[in-house]
Amino acid sequence: MFDAIVIGGGPAGATAAIYLQRFKRNTLLIMKDQGALGKTAHVDNYYGFVDTITGPDLLSRGINQARRLGTEVVQDEVLSIDYFDDFTVKTIHGEYKAKTVILATGKTQVYLKAKGFNDFIGKGISYCAICDGFIYRNKKIGLVGSKEFMEEELEILKQFSDDITIFTNGAKLEVDVDKEVVLEEIKEVHGQESIQQIVAGDKTYDIDVLFMAIGSPSASDFALRMGAFLDNNYIVVDEEFMTNIPGLFAAGDCIGGLLQIVKAASDGAHVAIAVHKYLKQNH
Amino acid sequence: MFDAIVIGGGPAGATAAIYLQRFKRNTLLIMKDQGALGKTAHVDNYYGFVDTITGPDLLSRGINQARRLGTEVVQDEVLSIDYFDDFTVKTIHGEYKAKTVILATGKTQVYLKAKGFNDFIGKGISYCAICDGFIYRNKKIGLVGSKEFMEEELEILKQFSDDITIFTNGAKLEVDVDKEVVLEEIKEVHGQESIQQIVAGDKTYDIDVLFMAIGSPSASDFALRMGAFLDNNYIVVDEEFMTNIPGLFAAGDCIGGLLQIVKAASDGAHVAIAVHKYLKQNH
Repeated sequence: MFDAIVIGGGPAGATAAIYLQRFKRNTLLIMKDQGALGKTAHVDNYYGFVDTITGPDLLSRGINQARRLGTEVVQDEVLSIDYFDDFTVKTIHGEYKAKTVILATGKTQVYLKAKGFNDFIGKGISYCAICDGFIYRNKKIGLVGSKEFMEEELEILKQFSDDITIFTNGAKLEVDVDKEVVLEEIKEVHGQESIQQIVAGDKTYDIDVLFMAIGSPSASDFALRMGAFLDNNYIVVDEEFMTNIPGLFAAGDCIGGLLQIVKAASDGAHVAIAVHKYLKQNH
Repeated sequence: MFDAIVIGGGPAGATAAIYLQRFKRNTLLIMKDQGALGKTAHVDNYYGFVDTITGPDLLSRGINQARRLGTEVVQDEVLSIDYFDDFTVKTIHGEYKAKTVILATGKTQVYLKAKGFNDFIGKGISYCAICDGFIYRNKKIGLVGSKEFMEEELEILKQFSDDITIFTNGAKLEVDVDKEVVLEEIKEVHGQESIQQIVAGDKTYDIDVLFMAIGSPSASDFALRMGAFLDNNYIVVDEEFMTNIPGLFAAGDCIGGLLQIVKAASDGAHVAIAVHKYLKQNH
């Protein structure tokens, strides 16, 4: 049982882990990949570096710093978080338990380039099977994705309907599914009040709903599934960086505000102090 | 005329300058000394440094980073800030004009170790001659300090009373004054509702008020003199890091919150963005 599991290895997540270790809280940091910072070529404005530094360099420095102070770091992809007394975090390769969880996976809302897509977000385009699945009982369901995250969502959606079509949107299918799979890219989305059809490749498919499960779940996806409040896709936290779910915290880009390294790192310090306080009071 | 003068060269001030330069705002940074960070032997928890770094090392890295991006850095001591359309910042060695000023001089409330001192703060112990001087017209005034800052306060107090005694509190007197000077350390403060006597060395002095002007003015001192609101000695700023005085901003430890390097640096980024926006709208 960890005191805290930090999901995300960017400035917010690593700083949270660094501070938690200093408070002698045993902390697991799970990171999938390099995130937004890993794609940043030049960092000039992060205090303390006289010369330009690359995003990946800063990122690995942060992770090594967290490791040096005792953080256990696992490179894996989180698939689900369950909350019942304590938190159970399921990844592709393992399962971990903790008293608290800090979401720090950055801002990763997934949009499709398909024409008309943005018009139907919330009007038949959904980011959460567990939230909206029951609304589409026995309806024609489209599910976009190609990996474990899509498979997770598929298992949930099967409880509501047999009529499910998978759209990989041009990606290679990486998991086994027992439903029809369309490999072509989604080009257009049609509908009136709500979504009615999508065009993938040169074929048109009738659907009543389109569930999005591309890539990996984001912090917002986890938050949504657990019943945490979102505002404009940002996770809502209180002054202590806690969501409306006791013990579930969030920090960095996924809670909005200035999307800057130093702000994310500052959030990391704040959330760690809040988690430390929470653990003192509740465990 | 600078777009912005940043007072203070720690994480908040340097980061503000770094961001402002990136916005092509010509910025002057005035720093006196190394501040709180300069006295920190080990920094382990500032994101991005795998190994322990010293405070002075981090501090000089930040200043050099600001310089590399084009910030003019002056090592000098600010004595006063005047506001009339624009800001005039007077230092020991010069005078500078700017459209905006950012206070980032850390947390430097000065207390005396004298017995009873804390009991009389606000009860005859004052940190602002310009604010409280008129209350003590023709009264017995004690003024604590030994340097330029004390001299500045003395000039103000002379307008209100001739009966002024300087207490250097054990420090060497570094300026010329035409008043009685007591060089001994202040050991005790006595009074009833308000201060009445202080004991310095083995002598007791009757006073009606004790003005504090030790060392250099802090951000709070400047803010106070300019009529900015303080709360518990922290400068009150709005969401845009601006005080109640248009164009006067503050960031870092002097506005309170978490007294951590990364929070101060994050403040610096925020305040720079706010100043940039303010300059766009008002100049």
